[in-house]
Amino acid sequence: MPEQEKPEPESGGEGVADGAADIANQILDLENSWRRTAAELDNFRKRCAKDVIRAREQERASVASRWLPVLDNLERALEHASSNPDQIVEGVRAVHQQALTVLADLGYPRRDDETGRPFDPAYHEAVSTIAGADLVPGTVAHVIRPGYGSDSEILRPASVIVATRSE
Amino acid sequence: MPEQEKPEPESGGEGVADGAADIANQILDLENSWRRTAAELDNFRKRCAKDVIRAREQERASVASRWLPVLDNLERALEHASSNPDQIVEGVRAVHQQALTVLADLGYPRRDDETGRPFDPAYHEAVSTIAGADLVPGTVAHVIRPGYGSDSEILRPASVIVATRSE
Repeated sequence: MPEQEKPEPESGGEGVADGAADIANQILDLENSWRRTAAELDNFRKRCAKDVIRAREQERASVASRWLPVLDNLERALEHASSNPDQIVEGVRAVHQQALTVLADLGYPRRDDETGRPFDPAYHEAVSTIAGADLVPGTVAHVIRPGYGSDSEILRPASVIVATRSE
Repeated sequence: MPEQEKPEPESGGEGVADGAADIANQILDLENSWRRTAAELDNFRKRCAKDVIRAREQERASVASRWLPVLDNLERALEHASSNPDQIVEGVRAVHQQALTVLADLGYPRRDDETGRPFDPAYHEAVSTIAGADLVPGTVAHVIRPGYGSDSEILRPASVIVATRSE
């Protein structure tokens, strides 16, 4: 924007009075342009702060609302529990699957198949160790609590028991 | 900032050459100040766009991670279901309460006690109507699906059956 509005500093050989008036106008123009840009910057700062707050609020509502169908189905399963107690396990399993899908859609799939992998603090949190002849030291022996997230963004590392060398 | 650095447009009665040099410097200073402010504005625009994206990502992760304990407990209830089928209803009820607490903590409490209230499209979504001598026309006769949110921020309106005048 400064490029377009840039005035010419040298204006040539008019009379001294004309030249002085030109220069004064030129300075005024420059000052005004600068002031406008400074005001724009100031407004933008304020707007940006609001944009960040609004983005958070929108995201919070968007993510929270994805869980409402899960809650609805959980309630439905509970309502049917009294009339048909055998079906509740089936219903709750379906709700659990639905919840996993919500998390995966948000970019946080459940991280399965960690057992047997080399322990990696980026993906695993060691809660204890276990020694065993059939275990490879330094690998995940058991997953206590599953981890969630993609390789690039871990929401929660898996809580694991790490295999150690048997004495 | 323009106020502090503002140069004096009239610089008095020095020699014409000195005056011209002063004015040229003054114009250069002004142009530089303007350019700096414009560059700052440009940088700020880019940073703001990044800030908004990061705010969304942080909020998404923050909200999603609140549901992990709910999922953990749902899994626990299912694991215990085979060994102790009677307890699953109790376990799932506790998970349901936990989920309601997560939503309330996020600012979206479940909206109970809507039955009997005047129908209000801000909080209610009418799915059908019902006539009955014991019902007050224009009020909520039944809640089919609960609404969530505060008075100022509704996440989802309640799906309701509205009472109408009986013929």
